[in-house]
Amino acid sequence: MSDTHLITLLSDFGLSDVYVGVMKGVIAQINPALKIIDLTHQIPPQNIAAAQFNLLNAYPYFPTGTVHVGVVDPGVGGARRSIAIQLEDGFLVGPDNGIFTGLLLQKTVLQAVELTHTEYWRVRQPSNTFHGRDIFAPVAAHLASGVPFGQLGQPIDPTTLVKLSIADPTPNATGYLGHVQYIDRFGNVITNIPGKIVENKKWAIALGRHTIPGCRTYSEVSASKPLALVGSHGWVEIAVNGGDAHFQLRLNWNAPVQVVLSPD
Amino acid sequence: MSDTHLITLLSDFGLSDVYVGVMKGVIAQINPALKIIDLTHQIPPQNIAAAQFNLLNAYPYFPTGTVHVGVVDPGVGGARRSIAIQLEDGFLVGPDNGIFTGLLLQKTVLQAVELTHTEYWRVRQPSNTFHGRDIFAPVAAHLASGVPFGQLGQPIDPTTLVKLSIADPTPNATGYLGHVQYIDRFGNVITNIPGKIVENKKWAIALGRHTIPGCRTYSEVSASKPLALVGSHGWVEIAVNGGDAHFQLRLNWNAPVQVVLSPD
Amino acid sequence: MSDTHLITLLSDFGLSDVYVGVMKGVIAQINPALKIIDLTHQIPPQNIAAAQFNLLNAYPYFPTGTVHVGVVDPGVGGARRSIAIQLEDGFLVGPDNGIFTGLLLQKTVLQAVELTHTEYWRVRQPSNTFHGRDIFAPVAAHLASGVPFGQLGQPIDPTTLVKLSIADPTPNATGYLGHVQYIDRFGNVITNIPGKIVENKKWAIALGRHTIPGCRTYSEVSASKPLALVGSHGWVEIAVNGGDAHFQLRLNWNAPVQVVLSPD
Repeated sequence: MSDTHLITLLSDFGLSDVYVGVMKGVIAQINPALKIIDLTHQIPPQNIAAAQFNLLNAYPYFPTGTVHVGVVDPGVGGARRSIAIQLEDGFLVGPDNGIFTGLLLQKTVLQAVELTHTEYWRVRQPSNTFHGRDIFAPVAAHLASGVPFGQLGQPIDPTTLVKLSIADPTPNATGYLGHVQYIDRFGNVITNIPGKIVENKKWAIALGRHTIPGCRTYSEVSASKPLALVGSHGWVEIAVNGGDAHFQLRLNWNAPVQVVLSPD
Repeated sequence: MSDTHLITLLSDFGLSDVYVGVMKGVIAQINPALKIIDLTHQIPPQNIAAAQFNLLNAYPYFPTGTVHVGVVDPGVGGARRSIAIQLEDGFLVGPDNGIFTGLLLQKTVLQAVELTHTEYWRVRQPSNTFHGRDIFAPVAAHLASGVPFGQLGQPIDPTTLVKLSIADPTPNATGYLGHVQYIDRFGNVITNIPGKIVENKKWAIALGRHTIPGCRTYSEVSASKPLALVGSHGWVEIAVNGGDAHFQLRLNWNAPVQVVLSPD
Repeated sequence: MSDTHLITLLSDFGLSDVYVGVMKGVIAQINPALKIIDLTHQIPPQNIAAAQFNLLNAYPYFPTGTVHVGVVDPGVGGARRSIAIQLEDGFLVGPDNGIFTGLLLQKTVLQAVELTHTEYWRVRQPSNTFHGRDIFAPVAAHLASGVPFGQLGQPIDPTTLVKLSIADPTPNATGYLGHVQYIDRFGNVITNIPGKIVENKKWAIALGRHTIPGCRTYSEVSASKPLALVGSHGWVEIAVNGGDAHFQLRLNWNAPVQVVLSPD
């Protein structure tokens, strides 16, 4: 049971249509006192990997007990399960398609249910294309209003929850080989290499013939020069001081990235 | 009179300027306890037809008594009236330019007023270019705070409210001929053909030489294949499983769409 | 001290990542009862001039005591100060890089502090790339919750606050020569010429060989024709009735603009 009265929403719905507004209207119909915070609705359409990455990064900054709704749902209306998950310090509601992968790998699952109890849905016959409106938003509203978690549906074995297979960086002769897992609005290129790997070490990124220095702040290099640093979410990032690394370095999603660690 | 304390905002202001934020500030100046939900601010500039379509689709998902503000207003500062409308289950505030067409066709109007009572405006001399800030937002804030509807201005005859002329689909030899009335962020192509027309029937869309099957869910066709279904707002839609029908089928706004009904 | 419980956020973070959502989560962790309004998060990346212009225009429409957070911060993690400012009627929190220029020129500064008191930060060791999350949002949350302004850090001399140098329009033989300081979502071209200069006068804009008439409303010219008027924020603007002046007239940021005043 959650009594924070706080729900977050993440989706690939964009903001040009009324899909997001409609989910908030459904929540307000159930309990107008609930507070809603948008994580983002600009996940690239149907990109579950980008969704799970953003949920993972945002989760730690919310109050204990927050109900996080994630709706990137290309399989809506098909066979995939609708689920809710109780973690040690918060709740997740959405499709069982891997959208919660990062959190499932890092957190302890206390309980999981398939959302089979239709009394917490908006209608008993939900749309085949918009479970965000008809199932996930209303279930989240009931949960954030105090309905006990176990009442939302049938218990399911947490080990059966769908997870994307996400490659870890691999150690090699010069350091670690990882890849680009996200590119943000500024063109910062975020790798899957945890910052801990470079902590208190001399390090750099080898990119073709070029070496990009490992730094602590943007301003350690001149304007328009590339640098690498541990970004705000704790991953090794490649940036350009005052510029756009994605554009300038032509580094794209999934491109390989080699961290070079200097001998001490 | 509304006592829901809930206002929705829809406009073509976009989110890159502070126009929307300023409307919310004006509302907070009048009553900081009011709750505001954005429907969308990405209506294509000055596209009243897209605005009325989105208002119509979003309206049913909000609590009774919600005050809906719509501002797509190319005639601002000119002769068009500023109005408020009391429907059977909610309120509308905006310009009298057709932005409420769909709701006016479907709902019963209890009362309508021209917004002539300047004590509910932000200032007595409003800007000629931003009635959203100076008239509509403050009037909505007063209405959602409990000011009786009739105090907002002079009563007007509901039959004089401006409505866009929207063509209905027409029955023909093979089924119904309609047109594209909206394209959403996913590239789903939404027609003006109500879902009821195909309910419990075998049906398809004829598009040039191609036939697009009538389905119930995206997953009934293979990835990247087109399908038709009744979308979440109740209209016949054309989609591509995992793709973008607008782009792939080159179907644009207002394009004709033929529904073919099979004999039973 | 502020007791309005209202915070506004302005940034160049965009809405495609979770940066903005994370700032709101941090605020909710400190005080879930605070109300947050977005001014805009679509400031062009690292464009401090556009940020200060939007903050200046939005500020007057918020309740006295509102805490405004501005984060366009290319120097984050470097030598620039983190600051809070108490104006006569509200509060500002952000980097000391010129983002508050317009307000500093128009308002009286009562107090200013450098944000040195880490007990009001999210963590004592903030990220080098995201002070919005680790310093500005939490400081704003504490301030809007009632922490006395002076407790946020060391007092600093208001005359040392960084201001951008913004050219005023200059009088000349035919009127005033200014420049384009902003272009909004509609393609309206906003100059740095205050509306007072043309008030109660006959006036026009000279643009190459063309003359654009000074008007009061869009509808004074035919559809698709250019006009000039005093926009909703009080600046001389160039617009096209039902169109996009930026596109149609090829007028860009910083382009010179000549106002011609007719003899009485």
